[in-house]
Parts: sequence; structure tokens; C-alpha cells
Amino acid sequence: MTNLDTQELTREVVGRFTDTPDQRLRTVLSSLVKHMHAFAVDVQLTQEEWLAGINFLTATGQKCTSTRQEFILLSDVLGLSMLTVGLQAKQPVGVTEATVFGPFFVPDAPELQNGDDVAQGAPGRPCTVSGSVRGVTGEPIRGAVIDVWQADEEGFYDVQKSDLTKAQARGRLRSRDDGSFEFRSIVAEAYPIPTDGPVGTLLEATKRSPWRPAHLHFMIQAEGYETLITHVFKMGDLYLDSDPVFGVRPSLVADWVPQADGTTVLHYDFVLAPAQSRPSVR
Amino acid sequence: MTNLDTQELTREVVGRFTDTPDQRLRTVLSSLVKHMHAFAVDVQLTQEEWLAGINFLTATGQKCTSTRQEFILLSDVLGLSMLTVGLQAKQPVGVTEATVFGPFFVPDAPELQNGDDVAQGAPGRPCTVSGSVRGVTGEPIRGAVIDVWQADEEGFYDVQKSDLTKAQARGRLRSRDDGSFEFRSIVAEAYPIPTDGPVGTLLEATKRSPWRPAHLHFMIQAEGYETLITHVFKMGDLYLDSDPVFGVRPSLVADWVPQADGTTVLHYDFVLAPAQSRPSVR
Repeated sequence: MTNLDTQELTREVVGRFTDTPDQRLRTVLSSLVKHMHAFAVDVQLTQEEWLAGINFLTATGQKCTSTRQEFILLSDVLGLSMLTVGLQAKQPVGVTEATVFGPFFVPDAPELQNGDDVAQGAPGRPCTVSGSVRGVTGEPIRGAVIDVWQADEEGFYDVQKSDLTKAQARGRLRSRDDGSFEFRSIVAEAYPIPTDGPVGTLLEATKRSPWRPAHLHFMIQAEGYETLITHVFKMGDLYLDSDPVFGVRPSLVADWVPQADGTTVLHYDFVLAPAQSRPSVR
Repeated sequence: MTNLDTQELTREVVGRFTDTPDQRLRTVLSSLVKHMHAFAVDVQLTQEEWLAGINFLTATGQKCTSTRQEFILLSDVLGLSMLTVGLQAKQPVGVTEATVFGPFFVPDAPELQNGDDVAQGAPGRPCTVSGSVRGVTGEPIRGAVIDVWQADEEGFYDVQKSDLTKAQARGRLRSRDDGSFEFRSIVAEAYPIPTDGPVGTLLEATKRSPWRPAHLHFMIQAEGYETLITHVFKMGDLYLDSDPVFGVRPSLVADWVPQADGTTVLHYDFVLAPAQSRPSVR
């Protein structure tokens, strides 16, 4: 019990973590408190602003459902998601780059066979997606579990449509013995991230655009390899340089090639890193 | 669209706030992003830890109701609330010190008269609380709106009791013409902050005690004066040096004096600061 100035208070709070059994948790919490306090001191945070922050975080939490993750979206637009992706262990040369997970992944997507239509009625221009999953020495990876998900041409993921009772433009398939895969879907289109929640309020207050460049989400998991979470982005998209979640990497941009029959073809080859001793991501 | 290292990414995110019309908002968000990114880099935050953080914040938001504010509780135990209180404009000498607001304030508490019983059936040892509300030159402040709230002897605020249909140990009264006030209530007792939510999980994981020293909450508002949000703490309490929300200040500790008739008497005199040009707190 003392009259603490701000530095003393920060030390006092950090000191309360001394008995934390998990040393890593102690390290993370101590650093979090130091940086959070430094922020408040830096801007001389007022009581009104503190309460506005409390209310914003509360609304963000209450916007979350089993199919809507507003905190991931907030992390995305503040660049924290992409920063964390960048902090992952350095991968061997040639490994496909990772990007943000995004708020729209759903576990237990429909199981599909190679050649199947992932769209399942989602509106959009038909396209065929093919590619391969290999290791860094070029070895084909058979039976890799490939989750793919995307928005439709109206900019919505299936989980954003309240009247939909089945998955659309979302599925899980496995690579063939030679590492190849193929599925039908619809052409990815640019779309705005959801603006009907606190993150939308933040973007509006800061005059930031919600438009993401067109992309197709992939999560690829295989025994003995690091899980890869990434997107493939559409070459030529207007928003490649202004992605609100900072997810674009040049190596992830590919061409959706128009065909004579009016369809479109995308081909992308993925390379996974060998598993490290640390636990897999998800 | 570039391959951003972490410093470049932080600059890129901060740059996206350039068009924010409200310059103060721009300043606060830019600083927030810099400090948050610095934290992630400092601890080399992993994907698993990032996701654990997302899930923790989501659960915290979802624990909030109209009578339970888990984000305020989180801010309290991380010392951010008390830090922000300390950042308030320096007050003239003699002004009663402020402390944390806490998560259990409820607007529109029952209106009471001086002499009334605030307890309204809440279990506890009876006591009488008296005091005064004055300005820094000693002038009595008449008609000051005094909100008072406290836990009962079992450690619960009324809003924590799901079977209760009326307010208990919570009320609003006004100072008399001479600035004095008086009400009956129950003796404040030490109690643990709620541990059935994410904040409880955090305290358990860090082996921190949830026990707050006994205290009585006050919010005092009067025309022409700064709103005061504070507690009066009980002298001799076991937990004065280990308050989990870091709220104790020596000047706020007072004696609940036992009387010959078995009751207890608390007297505390409050001094409000003259209003400043900035808007009032709440």
C-alpha cells in the first residue's frame, strides 16, 4: 500500500506475476503489462478514453459467434495477425509463405473428392483449381489434408448467410498419391471485410477501406510437415496494395487464367516445411 | 504489396491511420499499434499464444452482461485501471484521492434520504456512515449526488445474486445544506473478486490472490466540481498491501469504530476539486 507513481505501479503489477508456475506465461504477461502501461502513459489516456476502450472490447467480444470471430478481425486490421505470422520460425527456402488465418475458417468442412465442386451453389463464375503439395526436396506429399474456403462473387462466405443450411465454397479434400489435387469452384472476387461490427466502426472512424483483394484460403496439414495457412491472391486485383489485413505477399499472387470455353483455371503448387519439434499450429 | 519485416509492417499499419479525421484518435491508435506490435516482437509471440489471446479476449467479452463487466475486471487486475486513474489531471492539494471504478457500479440506484438504510436486507453487521462533501476552500457542497455501493458480509454485490429482485447495499443520496450526509449500512468486509470467469482463470494461472481489502465505493457528483470516484478502505484489513486491483491509497484508509451498543461507525470527509474545462468523467 503506497502512493505509486506510474513506473512504480507497473513494477508492482509485474511483481505480482512472480509466483506464476509457467515461466513462459510469466514472461508474456510481464511484457504485456509493461507495453500496455507504456501505451497508456505515452498517450496520457483519459478516463473517457479508457471507458471507450472497455466498451469497444466488450462489443467486440459480444459480436463473436461460432461462425464470426470479431477479435481475429480486429487483430487482422491492426496488423497483429500478420506480424505474428511473420514471427514464426524461419522456414527453409522454397517453402510457401504463410499469411493470416482470417475470421471465417470453420472446422469440419464437407469432405470432398478431387474433381468435386467446392462451390455447392455459391454464386460466381465457374473455375477449376489445381495444384500440388510437395516437400522442400520436391517429394510429393500424399494424403495431405487440404482445407479450402472462399467468399462468393457477392463477397460473402457461407457462414455470413443466415438463411444457408449447408456449407458453400468451403471444403476439405486430400492430395493424390503424386501430391496433386484438383477441384471446381468459383472465381475469387474482391470483397469488403464485415463492417457491421466494432471493426467496421473502427475502419469508418479512421477512413480505411474494408476491401480485401480477391483470394482463396488454404490450410494444408500433413504428417511430418508444418501446417501451412495461407491464401492465393488474384493477380491484377485493385486492392493488392491496400489489403486492410496486410496479408498480401508477392509470392502468393497467381493468375486465374480465362479459358476459351468461358471458364477460368488457377494452378498453384504448395511446398510444406518439414515438421519442427514444436507442436503444430492447430 | 511488399514482403514486410516487422518494423516495416508496424510503419505500414500506422500509415493507414493517416486519413483519420479525429487527430486524437489517430494519435491513440498509432501508439496502440506501436506498443502492441512491440509486445509481440518482444516475446516473439507464437501462433498458439496469439490464438490463446484471441480466445481469452473473446471469453472476456462474452462474460460481460448489464451487471458484470469482465473487461473492467481484467483492466483492474492488470493495473491499467489504476494507472489511468493516476494519469488524471493533477488535483489541488487536499482533494480526496480517486481510485478504480470497479465492475459493479449500476446506474439508477435507489434514491435514499439521509438516515436511510442502504443495506436493504443485505447480510452484515450494522453500521452507520457519516461524512461531508466540501470544496478545497472548505465550502460545504449542498445537494451533491452521492452514489454508494458495497459487497455484503458474504462478499457479494447485489448484482451478483441471481435470485435478488431489488438493489441491496447500493443507493444514491444527496448531501445536506451543510454538506453533510449520513446513512445506515453494513460493515464492509474483505471479499474475493469474481473468479468464475476468464479473469479468475488468469489469477489462478498466476497464483495471484483474488482477495480485495474491505471497502465502500463512492461516486460523488456536484455541479461546478469534478466527479470523484473512490473507495474508503477499512483500517487494519489483511489485504491492504495486496489488493488485486492495486486500488489502495493510504489517504483512503479509515477506521470503522466499534460502539458500545455493538454497532460500528465510519466517518469520512470528502473534498472535491473545482470543475475543469474538460468534460466530466461520467
